Amino acid sequence: MAEATGKGEYFVGVDLGGTKILSGVFKNSLECIGSAKVSTKSQRGVEAVIERVARCVRDAADEADLSLKQVAGVGIGAPGAVDFGEGRVIFAPNMEGWKDVPLKKHLEKLLDVPVFVENDCNIAALGVHVAELKAKPKNLIGIFVGTGIGGGIIINGDLYAGFNHTAGEVGHMVLAVNGPKCGCGNKGCFEALASRTAIFQQIKAGVKDGEKTLLTEMLGDDLSDLRSGDLRKAIRRGDKFVDKVVESAAEYIGIGIANLVNLFSPEVVVLGGGVIEALADEMMSVLVETAQDYAMPGTMKGVEIIASKLGDSAGITGGAVLARRETK
Amino acid sequence: MAEATGKGEYFVGVDLGGTKILSGVFKNSLECIGSAKVSTKSQRGVEAVIERVARCVRDAADEADLSLKQVAGVGIGAPGAVDFGEGRVIFAPNMEGWKDVPLKKHLEKLLDVPVFVENDCNIAALGVHVAELKAKPKNLIGIFVGTGIGGGIIINGDLYAGFNHTAGEVGHMVLAVNGPKCGCGNKGCFEALASRTAIFQQIKAGVKDGEKTLLTEMLGDDLSDLRSGDLRKAIRRGDKFVDKVVESAAEYIGIGIANLVNLFSPEVVVLGGGVIEALADEMMSVLVETAQDYAMPGTMKGVEIIASKLGDSAGITGGAVLARRETK
Repeated sequence: MAEATGKGEYFVGVDLGGTKILSGVFKNSLECIGSAKVSTKSQRGVEAVIERVARCVRDAADEADLSLKQVAGVGIGAPGAVDFGEGRVIFAPNMEGWKDVPLKKHLEKLLDVPVFVENDCNIAALGVHVAELKAKPKNLIGIFVGTGIGGGIIINGDLYAGFNHTAGEVGHMVLAVNGPKCGCGNKGCFEALASRTAIFQQIKAGVKDGEKTLLTEMLGDDLSDLRSGDLRKAIRRGDKFVDKVVESAAEYIGIGIANLVNLFSPEVVVLGGGVIEALADEMMSVLVETAQDYAMPGTMKGVEIIASKLGDSAGITGGAVLARRETK
Repeated sequence: MAEATGKGEYFVGVDLGGTKILSGVFKNSLECIGSAKVSTKSQRGVEAVIERVARCVRDAADEADLSLKQVAGVGIGAPGAVDFGEGRVIFAPNMEGWKDVPLKKHLEKLLDVPVFVENDCNIAALGVHVAELKAKPKNLIGIFVGTGIGGGIIINGDLYAGFNHTAGEVGHMVLAVNGPKCGCGNKGCFEALASRTAIFQQIKAGVKDGEKTLLTEMLGDDLSDLRSGDLRKAIRRGDKFVDKVVESAAEYIGIGIANLVNLFSPEVVVLGGGVIEALADEMMSVLVETAQDYAMPGTMKGVEIIASKLGDSAGITGGAVLARRETK
């Protein structure tokens, strides 16, 4: 296939997640002028998902009253290990069958626009760095707490990916040897202690053990439709049990941040993802205090720990930043 | 004071440790042509230690039949947080009274040669990278296991220090929340699980609890003069208890490495320090295997985990590399 050659002046960012696909069309100024969302349906297989991504890109362009010919490039964040050079998803643990998928090649065939593939959290960190933080810190760590926990690292103003392009796997940093089992097979990973999955498991286990919570009044005993926002509601209505579980997760996030500050000495640590979006007011002060407690003397001086305001848009914004960078 | 101006063609590296000071004179080719060693005597106070450093530099120059006028610069590694720009030791936990010490200024006054101050493990990683590893990996992590555990990070071929110049504090990465107490005040730090201090504590606690070990035959019941080399001797003579303790430390080092590989995706992880020097044969295969077990799929591909052969010379070599770099 001939190399796709985008001639347009717009950039599309895509956030490919385990449950939903988001896309946005951005001007060179990074103003979003159209977006779209479809569910991922990963159980339908790899090819179907890639077609849904293409549809989501077309939908966003349509929302912005543009044709794909006006798009210079598409930047897409995928939830797993990525070979950036080849635009290949090496492995995406939360997506059925995603092993060694040449996403760039397939999408370019469907869209006839240059496509650039990155890890989803790398791209979100890039989005926050370029579009949200005016001071443009040289060194930044992004931590995204949702179903899992992922990270993105900016070093010397640029995305840092390392030798195998796998840097920033903060979620699988072991914090508690012999701690709770993680989806990756290890025990005591950061993700197994403080992700939404971990928080929900602790709440469900507590309910089974007879803990009292407003959540069962709100959602029924099986808590089948539990969301991060429900935790916030319960805490604000005085739910001590949920408060304790969320506070413990915030403490683990603080310890994770301290480890990262000790290792990377970043200027800014930015938090994002669904859990932080829903529970920033409940978690931020606890996690900042814990990070300060655990970090070595001198390492936290002047370091900012903040919650991103981009929310769900961090990924699509970062995708557009990537496409802009790679097509210039 | 006027800026010291070294005009010579030789470089001196100094490794300032809690118990001893090492210095070496190096040619531009990094060949060591003279070295010296004095004990630190940190209990005599900061000023006395700085005078001992100066003496150690003069002794090494004398060994090499040189005068200080022939030395272009001195690079010194200090065991703590360092303000590189100002040449100031911010805090050195194992040295009495070392808080905010303008080491560069004092030493330049004593030696009349430009002095550059770095963290000791940063400098050791730099020494290994420049003088030992022919392939010059772009990204490297050095882990030095001795009394404590320290690290040095090379990113894009250069020492990485981060925003507060404190990056690479690998020893205080929490691996076991609520684990054994660390000298830093936290619990479960890498250093509290796998340093020589931690290994010796476990052995002494075991002996108190009635564990049988050849070490008591070798050294008496109080094990007062225990050294890393004794552990090697005991293991080689079939000491099951010592073998178990050392293996457990090697496993923790493997988990620490996996965390660092997940976070940094380095090309090479190099191990050094007294514990590794004494016990490489006993520990390397266990720690490599554990690191491979714990690291995320894909992250270990092509990554080398090796023991440095520079031993005690890593620090002085790195000091000379730093001095060479800064005076050119």
